[in-house]
Amino acid sequence: MQLPAMITRLPEADLPFPSSALKTSVLQSHNGQLVFFQIHKDIEIPPHSHKGQWGIVLEGELEMTIGGKTRKYRPGDTYYIPEGVVHSAKVPAGCKAIDFFEEPDRYKVR
Amino acid sequence: MQLPAMITRLPEADLPFPSSALKTSVLQSHNGQLVFFQIHKDIEIPPHSHKGQWGIVLEGELEMTIGGKTRKYRPGDTYYIPEGVVHSAKVPAGCKAIDFFEEPDRYKVR
Repeated sequence: MQLPAMITRLPEADLPFPSSALKTSVLQSHNGQLVFFQIHKDIEIPPHSHKGQWGIVLEGELEMTIGGKTRKYRPGDTYYIPEGVVHSAKVPAGCKAIDFFEEPDRYKVR
Repeated sequence: MQLPAMITRLPEADLPFPSSALKTSVLQSHNGQLVFFQIHKDIEIPPHSHKGQWGIVLEGELEMTIGGKTRKYRPGDTYYIPEGVVHSAKVPAGCKAIDFFEEPDRYKVR
């Protein structure tokens, strides 16, 4: 599943991963940030927390631990991480997902 | 699948359907409009066209005709409607979907 240019030309999020590992496309709003993630190399996101986050897997899979519970998420699966709940993830190459972050400044945009 | 308040509290799109038929939640950006749709009554969207649109079904199903080709879309299925391509849809009650519109003013926001 190819994301169209109308999405991939959106600005990128400033993340602590090399650009060879993932591509991000950020839809910036006053009401939050929505990020299209395309993962090219396996990545691990260590435990952290912030305001609310909701997401859906588009392609591939990811493993997430939310508030101590670990499960795999596959295309069409959605997840919700309430404010302050610690979460971490293992995301293999090939995963595509959308995440909506309640914070409009969750990421700096390049 | 329940969409969290961080999404359902976003502003609504001004659409020609009664509010009993559907609920929309719009993430407004300079780079487009992303709309979460929750359909409460069967609706039909007549053939029309505009700039690019990309979407994914979250729950339930919908039938769409894009450029003369009709198919059903189910949770996790994505679709892309290039600029100018005529499309129409039959969306039964219970469907939830996300659509991203290239035009930042595709809908008036209430």
